[in-house]
Amino acid sequence: MSHILIQNIRILAGVDPSGCRPMAKGEAMCQLPVIENAYLWVEGPVVKAFGPQSECPDIPDARKVDAVGRLVLPAWCDSHTHLVFAATRESEFVGRIQGLSYEEIAQRGGGILNSARRLNEMPEEALFEVSWERLQEVRRKGTGAIEIKSGYGLNLEAELKMLRVIRRLKEKSGMLIKSTFLGAHALPLEFRSRRSDYIRQLIEAWIPAVAHEQLADYLDVFCEKGFFTPEETGRILDAGARWGLKGKIHVNQFHSIGGVQTAIRHSALSVDHLEVMTKEDITDLASSTVIPTLLPSAPFFLNDPYPPARQLIDAGMGVALATDFNPGSSPSGSMPLVLTLACTQMGMTPEEAIQAATLNGAYAMEVQDLAGSIAPGQFANLIITQPASALAYLPYAFGTDWIDTVLLNGDPVAPGAFRLF
Amino acid sequence: MSHILIQNIRILAGVDPSGCRPMAKGEAMCQLPVIENAYLWVEGPVVKAFGPQSECPDIPDARKVDAVGRLVLPAWCDSHTHLVFAATRESEFVGRIQGLSYEEIAQRGGGILNSARRLNEMPEEALFEVSWERLQEVRRKGTGAIEIKSGYGLNLEAELKMLRVIRRLKEKSGMLIKSTFLGAHALPLEFRSRRSDYIRQLIEAWIPAVAHEQLADYLDVFCEKGFFTPEETGRILDAGARWGLKGKIHVNQFHSIGGVQTAIRHSALSVDHLEVMTKEDITDLASSTVIPTLLPSAPFFLNDPYPPARQLIDAGMGVALATDFNPGSSPSGSMPLVLTLACTQMGMTPEEAIQAATLNGAYAMEVQDLAGSIAPGQFANLIITQPASALAYLPYAFGTDWIDTVLLNGDPVAPGAFRLF
Repeated sequence: MSHILIQNIRILAGVDPSGCRPMAKGEAMCQLPVIENAYLWVEGPVVKAFGPQSECPDIPDARKVDAVGRLVLPAWCDSHTHLVFAATRESEFVGRIQGLSYEEIAQRGGGILNSARRLNEMPEEALFEVSWERLQEVRRKGTGAIEIKSGYGLNLEAELKMLRVIRRLKEKSGMLIKSTFLGAHALPLEFRSRRSDYIRQLIEAWIPAVAHEQLADYLDVFCEKGFFTPEETGRILDAGARWGLKGKIHVNQFHSIGGVQTAIRHSALSVDHLEVMTKEDITDLASSTVIPTLLPSAPFFLNDPYPPARQLIDAGMGVALATDFNPGSSPSGSMPLVLTLACTQMGMTPEEAIQAATLNGAYAMEVQDLAGSIAPGQFANLIITQPASALAYLPYAFGTDWIDTVLLNGDPVAPGAFRLF
Repeated sequence: MSHILIQNIRILAGVDPSGCRPMAKGEAMCQLPVIENAYLWVEGPVVKAFGPQSECPDIPDARKVDAVGRLVLPAWCDSHTHLVFAATRESEFVGRIQGLSYEEIAQRGGGILNSARRLNEMPEEALFEVSWERLQEVRRKGTGAIEIKSGYGLNLEAELKMLRVIRRLKEKSGMLIKSTFLGAHALPLEFRSRRSDYIRQLIEAWIPAVAHEQLADYLDVFCEKGFFTPEETGRILDAGARWGLKGKIHVNQFHSIGGVQTAIRHSALSVDHLEVMTKEDITDLASSTVIPTLLPSAPFFLNDPYPPARQLIDAGMGVALATDFNPGSSPSGSMPLVLTLACTQMGMTPEEAIQAATLNGAYAMEVQDLAGSIAPGQFANLIITQPASALAYLPYAFGTDWIDTVLLNGDPVAPGAFRLF
């Protein structure tokens, strides 16, 4: 078993080094204690111990890394992505600059349906390769656990292809990867006049097939005008529940149409997007256990209003932050940039943003016992920064390469690209 | 003399390979021809030739780089930065999240005055070292020519220290660096009740001293409520003109108070910021030769309105884009991110944004004969991308490391960190 001793660091961790931390909610989101002048001991793939430098154990065969002036924080837990896709969609981006809305592009067969055409044409091996490259990039940017959705297949065969690619990404990388079946991402054009047929086959054939092959951990629906109604969303979530798939659903991206309430009724794990929220949506969500997941890269890229993060947190909720990495509305898997957007555009404090991007993201993937905090027994998924005077530096220094080293399962990602490893 | 042949590329360049291109203005900003399937020959520090791959010369001792699928574009010309500073200001960033405005922070002795205190305390050697590190980072992100301002000294000794650091950066890096004297950045607290004394010493002693040591190429003034009035700005520009220093001035960041008209009257090279523009400001600027320089990272970071880029371009102007890299309002020297902000937040097309960040930035530093285009005899300051299907991919893929290699003066920056070199 290999040993690494990282020394003279400042660790962003709960003060209780004994185990899993509760999800950070409301005012507690702002409390992120830092252990000054500390050591951290990595044994094989996990964190063995950490504490004040003065109590650093003597481990003769450990690799000792002097990281003075640097912060060590948990790797990001990115709980909402569409990282498996065939092709980028920069031509639609130009269309939007010239005045088309995201919804207009979708109406014309662009958007998700465009991605679906390209994905259907691409062989599984090629899809794996492009997705693998993307996964490497987000790992270098500090992502240690990630959720990936299907939803660009829109027929059983292609959805299964996507889910198999996600499984291969998980197997080959050894990363914490959660897989979500998003057959209800958009209605294919050929089903425009018979949407109930699409939903029936989704419920009666596809969900059972996906569950039978154990290809998904969660179920997702794009509950939005022009996509799926709350009533349809509810029926699809019911079907998922029969097969043991919890909901993590897209709601309130462009309109408030009852998606939040549907998610609550069906005990979804998370509601994601929330750009458009009524007072009632906020009140209902605050009294539920559903996790609000905010994806600020999408409104940034679409130039839309941002989710009311402050109102959600001030109402006592614990929010998660994720990238929404996808070729249409968020062609970026950068969690550092999400951190900056959370602080500059949504008024979150640096502490809140970091908790939302690590611990709360872990809760939104149910991996909080394995990742999202620095705690003995958890995976050694760690970000070591360049020398930084305060954790506020991290969202502040946007566009700066402030990550020195990323350790995942105790191993440096891209060794040689960083200074310390 | 070393030779490099980059082959099978797509080059963003004017179709006329014979020399310097005129500044792109109005509709011409959108015209950025791409030469498909091309070669590019680098001889020592300059571009020797380029053209269709079928006409690629045979140069036996050239290093041949097969860059199929990649775009080659001119390195960025970042015409407005404050890259030389002593310390980051993330604590003020937290203050702003908690509700203070940039101007309120300045009123309390934060902001520029905070930077000035820190800079005055720092020895020249240490200031050079931190600035050198920042310069290396922006070079890796593709910046090949850069303007750097003084303005955190606010007394003669410290201003000269800054300008000497800029000169050392230039000498050590061999980069195209332009230096701007910004003694009129803010009024030190001790001059609050005698502002005319400050301005008098600036005009009578500091500008002559800076000019005498040939430490500056340009003169800058922060023409803004709470900083310097248009009348004061005009007098300072007059003094600069007597010593051969053209104006590149901060105007209309928070208020329209006549700065644009002052700049025009005094034949400034550029007016920078322009977040707040009246109709009259736009009309006046359109009929002048002053270059509008937009700094979208600042309104992004401050969550302020963006400059009306579309109106300026549609009025026939050629705009430049720059980072405004500084510790208070834009702690980022990333030109790739500026490109994305220009397209997503200001409605510029990818072609317009790239022209503004290269050719027009070169004009805003008067280095258009040396940089900002790909042309024989110009410096081989080049960005080679990762494989990319279209130039729209570059602003689209925000937060993605789409730069493979940066060549400056024909040499790869950070060789080994990239794939091709």
